Amino acid sequence: MSPSLTQTDVTVVPRFSNIATFMRSAHVPLSSELDIAISGVPFDLGTAFRIGSRFGPACVREQSRHVRRIHQTFGFSPFDLCRVADVGDAPVRSFSIRDSLALIEDHFRKIKDLEITPLTIGGDHTISLPILRGIVQHGPIGLIHIDAHSDTLDSIQGEQYCNGTPFRRAVEEGLVDPKRLVQIGIRETLFDKDDHDWAKANGIRMISMNEIDQRGLEAIVEETRSIVAERPCYLTLDIDSLDPSVAPGTGAVEPGGFTVREMERLLEGLMGVDLIGADIPEVSPLYDEGGRTGRVAATLAFDLLCLLAKAHAARQR
Amino acid sequence: MSPSLTQTDVTVVPRFSNIATFMRSAHVPLSSELDIAISGVPFDLGTAFRIGSRFGPACVREQSRHVRRIHQTFGFSPFDLCRVADVGDAPVRSFSIRDSLALIEDHFRKIKDLEITPLTIGGDHTISLPILRGIVQHGPIGLIHIDAHSDTLDSIQGEQYCNGTPFRRAVEEGLVDPKRLVQIGIRETLFDKDDHDWAKANGIRMISMNEIDQRGLEAIVEETRSIVAERPCYLTLDIDSLDPSVAPGTGAVEPGGFTVREMERLLEGLMGVDLIGADIPEVSPLYDEGGRTGRVAATLAFDLLCLLAKAHAARQR
Amino acid sequence: MSPSLTQTDVTVVPRFSNIATFMRSAHVPLSSELDIAISGVPFDLGTAFRIGSRFGPACVREQSRHVRRIHQTFGFSPFDLCRVADVGDAPVRSFSIRDSLALIEDHFRKIKDLEITPLTIGGDHTISLPILRGIVQHGPIGLIHIDAHSDTLDSIQGEQYCNGTPFRRAVEEGLVDPKRLVQIGIRETLFDKDDHDWAKANGIRMISMNEIDQRGLEAIVEETRSIVAERPCYLTLDIDSLDPSVAPGTGAVEPGGFTVREMERLLEGLMGVDLIGADIPEVSPLYDEGGRTGRVAATLAFDLLCLLAKAHAARQR
Amino acid sequence: MSPSLTQTDVTVVPRFSNIATFMRSAHVPLSSELDIAISGVPFDLGTAFRIGSRFGPACVREQSRHVRRIHQTFGFSPFDLCRVADVGDAPVRSFSIRDSLALIEDHFRKIKDLEITPLTIGGDHTISLPILRGIVQHGPIGLIHIDAHSDTLDSIQGEQYCNGTPFRRAVEEGLVDPKRLVQIGIRETLFDKDDHDWAKANGIRMISMNEIDQRGLEAIVEETRSIVAERPCYLTLDIDSLDPSVAPGTGAVEPGGFTVREMERLLEGLMGVDLIGADIPEVSPLYDEGGRTGRVAATLAFDLLCLLAKAHAARQR
Amino acid sequence: MSPSLTQTDVTVVPRFSNIATFMRSAHVPLSSELDIAISGVPFDLGTAFRIGSRFGPACVREQSRHVRRIHQTFGFSPFDLCRVADVGDAPVRSFSIRDSLALIEDHFRKIKDLEITPLTIGGDHTISLPILRGIVQHGPIGLIHIDAHSDTLDSIQGEQYCNGTPFRRAVEEGLVDPKRLVQIGIRETLFDKDDHDWAKANGIRMISMNEIDQRGLEAIVEETRSIVAERPCYLTLDIDSLDPSVAPGTGAVEPGGFTVREMERLLEGLMGVDLIGADIPEVSPLYDEGGRTGRVAATLAFDLLCLLAKAHAARQR
Amino acid sequence: MSPSLTQTDVTVVPRFSNIATFMRSAHVPLSSELDIAISGVPFDLGTAFRIGSRFGPACVREQSRHVRRIHQTFGFSPFDLCRVADVGDAPVRSFSIRDSLALIEDHFRKIKDLEITPLTIGGDHTISLPILRGIVQHGPIGLIHIDAHSDTLDSIQGEQYCNGTPFRRAVEEGLVDPKRLVQIGIRETLFDKDDHDWAKANGIRMISMNEIDQRGLEAIVEETRSIVAERPCYLTLDIDSLDPSVAPGTGAVEPGGFTVREMERLLEGLMGVDLIGADIPEVSPLYDEGGRTGRVAATLAFDLLCLLAKAHAARQR
Repeated sequence: MSPSLTQTDVTVVPRFSNIATFMRSAHVPLSSELDIAISGVPFDLGTAFRIGSRFGPACVREQSRHVRRIHQTFGFSPFDLCRVADVGDAPVRSFSIRDSLALIEDHFRKIKDLEITPLTIGGDHTISLPILRGIVQHGPIGLIHIDAHSDTLDSIQGEQYCNGTPFRRAVEEGLVDPKRLVQIGIRETLFDKDDHDWAKANGIRMISMNEIDQRGLEAIVEETRSIVAERPCYLTLDIDSLDPSVAPGTGAVEPGGFTVREMERLLEGLMGVDLIGADIPEVSPLYDEGGRTGRVAATLAFDLLCLLAKAHAARQR
Repeated sequence: MSPSLTQTDVTVVPRFSNIATFMRSAHVPLSSELDIAISGVPFDLGTAFRIGSRFGPACVREQSRHVRRIHQTFGFSPFDLCRVADVGDAPVRSFSIRDSLALIEDHFRKIKDLEITPLTIGGDHTISLPILRGIVQHGPIGLIHIDAHSDTLDSIQGEQYCNGTPFRRAVEEGLVDPKRLVQIGIRETLFDKDDHDWAKANGIRMISMNEIDQRGLEAIVEETRSIVAERPCYLTLDIDSLDPSVAPGTGAVEPGGFTVREMERLLEGLMGVDLIGADIPEVSPLYDEGGRTGRVAATLAFDLLCLLAKAHAARQR
Repeated sequence: MSPSLTQTDVTVVPRFSNIATFMRSAHVPLSSELDIAISGVPFDLGTAFRIGSRFGPACVREQSRHVRRIHQTFGFSPFDLCRVADVGDAPVRSFSIRDSLALIEDHFRKIKDLEITPLTIGGDHTISLPILRGIVQHGPIGLIHIDAHSDTLDSIQGEQYCNGTPFRRAVEEGLVDPKRLVQIGIRETLFDKDDHDWAKANGIRMISMNEIDQRGLEAIVEETRSIVAERPCYLTLDIDSLDPSVAPGTGAVEPGGFTVREMERLLEGLMGVDLIGADIPEVSPLYDEGGRTGRVAATLAFDLLCLLAKAHAARQR
Repeated sequence: MSPSLTQTDVTVVPRFSNIATFMRSAHVPLSSELDIAISGVPFDLGTAFRIGSRFGPACVREQSRHVRRIHQTFGFSPFDLCRVADVGDAPVRSFSIRDSLALIEDHFRKIKDLEITPLTIGGDHTISLPILRGIVQHGPIGLIHIDAHSDTLDSIQGEQYCNGTPFRRAVEEGLVDPKRLVQIGIRETLFDKDDHDWAKANGIRMISMNEIDQRGLEAIVEETRSIVAERPCYLTLDIDSLDPSVAPGTGAVEPGGFTVREMERLLEGLMGVDLIGADIPEVSPLYDEGGRTGRVAATLAFDLLCLLAKAHAARQR
Repeated sequence: MSPSLTQTDVTVVPRFSNIATFMRSAHVPLSSELDIAISGVPFDLGTAFRIGSRFGPACVREQSRHVRRIHQTFGFSPFDLCRVADVGDAPVRSFSIRDSLALIEDHFRKIKDLEITPLTIGGDHTISLPILRGIVQHGPIGLIHIDAHSDTLDSIQGEQYCNGTPFRRAVEEGLVDPKRLVQIGIRETLFDKDDHDWAKANGIRMISMNEIDQRGLEAIVEETRSIVAERPCYLTLDIDSLDPSVAPGTGAVEPGGFTVREMERLLEGLMGVDLIGADIPEVSPLYDEGGRTGRVAATLAFDLLCLLAKAHAARQR
Repeated sequence: MSPSLTQTDVTVVPRFSNIATFMRSAHVPLSSELDIAISGVPFDLGTAFRIGSRFGPACVREQSRHVRRIHQTFGFSPFDLCRVADVGDAPVRSFSIRDSLALIEDHFRKIKDLEITPLTIGGDHTISLPILRGIVQHGPIGLIHIDAHSDTLDSIQGEQYCNGTPFRRAVEEGLVDPKRLVQIGIRETLFDKDDHDWAKANGIRMISMNEIDQRGLEAIVEETRSIVAERPCYLTLDIDSLDPSVAPGTGAVEPGGFTVREMERLLEGLMGVDLIGADIPEVSPLYDEGGRTGRVAATLAFDLLCLLAKAHAARQR
């Protein structure tokens, strides 16, 4: 592996030292030398209420200092399996939703064109749409969507491109197959009684937190694997799927979410799924306490990186 | 319904906008037009140690901006079932326990006389006593008391009207039937070995957190419903019944409490009970982090509002 | 005076009690019964970097509980001079700069048409433009602009309507006479060398913090009064004009600003100026500590309310 | 000196170590072995609005770890001049103003009877009354009162013994000579126009912050010394006399107060005054940021300890 | 019992009052009058990344004000079973690991020589080594080690005495029998693949959080009791074994840990084990929120005090 | 200039975006292409009490996002005068003072050998010693030392290399000429009466904050320039020289320090001095509030960068 792509060595360099990149990975431009590109997307103009996830990528980079090298359960380092680097942030604009979405889409199309697998830190959940536009080129893919919210509204205050709508748009645009879309952990209060009608009518499988309490997590993992099947799929993990006691730093808090242990069990249960990319949106450090949410996001991003590294390596074989 | 009683429309008006009332309800004076009155009671002079719940109502109002309109599990909006409004705070005094208790009692007697169902945000737990004095007019009622503490001491430092004693007073005054009083989640360290003797001697059913861990929550819900039976009862949910990781903003923190998911399952299990009122005391934002506890309180207050709306509607039939 | 317009009585009702309005004033709709209308404008989409002043009005309302009734230096209460009320927030939209500016302008045009003097809490500094559009009807007025930043750029990232440009637009649109525009306390680092060229070329008087240190505040007060002369003018007081130690809760902090004592001396020096309105933008509680900035804003808003009440009363004579 | 009265040695024992007493002084019971007794008075039931100074003494003890041994300007250590110890907290009760005032008075009468000079950390400003009752035995004394508030109201909400009234009571009870009472730094907004009338009618000299800005601090020091003259007097320094940027941790914040440098110059100017005791009330850590206000209070308490040590030593000669 | 060893009476003295010692116990020097000595060890120079647990003992003392007198589950007070006091902090040095370890060892050897059972608050986990050196005199003992980390590395950055290595050293030095050493809750990411090899090779039983999720806590308690058997053992409870949502105030946070209810069930399951001492290291208030972690540590320290009191009393019989 | 050395363009790229380097400068290795190298030195093992400045460099990098491009008073950008880059952190070790000092010295010797001018962010004040060792090669230089503390003790707890001693060591080692060493703003309480004797005996000019209050800042600037004369000198600006209200995030807070406006006037007064390097130590974000201290440090670092750029450019002529 190119020496320019090695992580800073955590056994020699104190973790408080140097410029923060995602898990101490090298900070390099996009190139064909990479297998996995970690990007930030500091976009939050799709947020109707508590804005601020533009500061998410910087926070997660800083908090990822905590993560060491080897995943305890999986027993390997993704940096040993793949060439991984921090490619910086996708370009965005401070005032325009549409300009930003176009710039983000371009960034991920380049990633796709270089056959790189993307792992992304948001930014609000709107970003999943331009990411999917960038990386989905040959027909709809599957989607594992872990979230407190369904995000399948038609619009909020008339705006069709915001963090309450990305997966409706993605299905409408043929990027995601609603039959292979599973939503896990939904527990939002609703604007209107029919908020979830479109999703259900289109065959999206919505699993509420109540159902998880009743059926247990193992059954959910099983069902999820069978829904996405053995074909390519994307994973999006909204940080607000976790309980606010675990991850207070997010805009749309909904008390009553996952613990980290549950989430880790869920993600571990997805090892072997053909993941072609993943994102963690909605980390919003302004509402956080002491970087706690960023640290949880970094831990889960490391889990996802392991899943992506295995899947990427499997696709190369 | 009178247009003056409609909630601010969450689909048009951004939730960060305008003056904060409980869940964007109308702010109106008490009148016979109302079915359910939400009040604050900013009284905390009954607090021996960590005072500050006088700031609870303002905090919960502000944090209730988060709650949308429809309850996901129940599938309805309490605002569609009943005429609900925020009637402001019960009057209190800054320096006198007795004057304040009298003023609070008056406020709730007026509510009772108008046949309104009260939902109240505290204030320390002392407030349940004047509330019960105000609304109980024909013999003792049942009481579902969710709390880390039994609150059945005779006095603290010689003071008989404080947040360690309200339910002893309520039983002594014939407001509550001890045989229909169930305490759920008790886990306090004790001042003295005999702290719980009076409660047990009077037939109060005290369920410790340990017992809940052993028997499971479903059994507790079952038993609770059978204790209060199908007659009128009141529900008081001390925010410190929750774990401090979930609800740090309270005076008498006791590590080892409920998660929000458990609490919601418990409350959902009480649908159909003949609730004639409810309160959530002991939110104390000075000890909180980022409004987190107020937000949990607002979420649970919405659950209680749904239970009260169903019960109120059932009584009108 | 209509009893519905009286402040809550601070000598009887504890200040922690009841729903927060600006300085406990009545919360009423706009009507000809009013002399002075206090509004919030929770708009912050004009913010390129640290967004969040949408939460400013709610924060200042809450913190204005601190202010009692009588101004110590002036010796009167503005509530005794004028009919003052909190008219709530101007309508805004969560996703659109242009729609929001139009809605804000409408709100202030109504205020103007009712011959009411407006006092406004932001929101980011963009809001001064639609306020001026709403209230300036007969030729350009004077402007006292207290700020760390000149806010006379042509655009930021191509956006012409944002918080770096309102006073350039206001001059271009003929709302403000640049010869009667004085900027006090400027100390920003610049994007480019020519950032201030337009302002200087148009005859705007820009007084840097350095100049204030050298000449003393008294000379500045004198000069300000002579610039705006005895004709109508508006006052806008960006909270970031204060030092971040005093007012940390704002987006574009610039260390090295005013103390509160200096600011109060400056405002007291403006008694008698023919002020037709005033605003305090850029309070951003997400960056604040314990509501401190909101409290300072409430204190200064009270000072401005006194100035406006005197000016309004003088115009009625 | 008795070895049991030595401070912990700051050159050997790390300052983060061991149980916190005021400036590492010995923790001993009251006895005739002492010259100066530092007490806490954790009483705050006299607070109408933002309660919480009951936690002041613990906070100042903890923060006094910062203070080393020798005062830089004075050039000596008060521990070398006098036998100084931390005698713990005066007894108080959680629910009763009157019981607490009686207990506090007893504590300070014992101190007086042992001919000890008291230095006290509050608690709210009510405590100055029982302290004065305890230590004034032969006719009224002088009083240097540094504060944002005059604290000479007759009552608040009908309560005559609270933190808005102690100095009116002290004058009425013949404890303080109003002609030798000077109030420095007053800047409060008023409940009513006549709030200050009683003070002025009784010959109390009230110096507003505005006047200080105009006349300069040196003139104020001069005048203060001439008012209290060379006879015994007491000093009370309300922490809210400082600007909230310096000391945010207090209940009744009033933007526009002293800097620490001004306060230190003022206190240094009082060297040689015949001080028979001093207190610092109104430190309220719940409203503080990182212990900052406690640290400022500890610094000023050290200044006062130096003044008291000199005065005590002078009286022994 | 000597009156000088009684706790401050929580039924008379408000808990916010007086100087903070562990659970209001007497603060006395080490002497043969004691059965159990609670010490702080404010040492954190063994911390590679997020230093600061030097402030742990002061924080836990302050937060232990919350704990009342009687343990609800056990039904007794340890202060009724044993003579318990706070003996202050073990001496440490600010700059030297080796000097500090020697001083700590001396402190605990004195405790052992007086036949006192020690309960200790850290400081970082390095402190368990000098504690064990001080109290283990006749061959290796058993060890119950509850932690997110195994702490059995050989060195970090070449330093053999730090918080990643104490139990490797303790086994090598013959202080602990690796066959009677059980590690509960391990879930760290690893520096290197072989981080746990030494522990496993030496027969240490390492129970990961994953295994606990699968087998349930009861099985773990059972196995733990059988590993340490009925012979003397020590218990060390790293506060980072708890989930960061419960105990954020620690250096090496690892999302996905114990809840307090699980930890209490685990500790209650150890009643009757022959514990000869216990410690709670790694409380680091600089990373905490509102003293929350210190409060949990105080709660668990009370649980441990009950276990130690029973064991100590049993050994006296 | 090499394109690889350009700052990120603040007019196009939102300031919240991308990886944080000092003022958006390029992150490159040390090379002869540079004129000015900005380094972090995350070393804090020289701290006796409140450790944590190891996190200073990361904090200042993050907060330097605020600074735009052009200095308002100086009217130029240092990036237009010199080739400036962020060269990352000097290597340090987590456990060893001596190893770290050697590594830091090496880093700065390389800088010196490449004829680069260093600007450094600490780390505790110990770091000035190895920096001076690295860059002073031909006899003692002058030193402008702005600080609350003299830092000229012989040792603390026996340690000669810590943050209380660097300038004594630097004079003893012939790196700094005590006759050209001026200390500005000293106001510490002292461990012992003789703490300042060595400094005074060696001809160091120590200017207390009291003296500054009496003589005014202009006289101090004048005297400083005449002390260091027109020969090479270094500037070290301890962040604790500022008042804690301005810069709370530091270990050894001393209430009563500089305002930012005073500090900026002081630094502006030093334009033209032959500065060969500068550092800002003691930023300690663990004690900070919302990044405020880091932001002030970034602002002052920008001032220093301007001074260094002018001086460097002057030396090239």
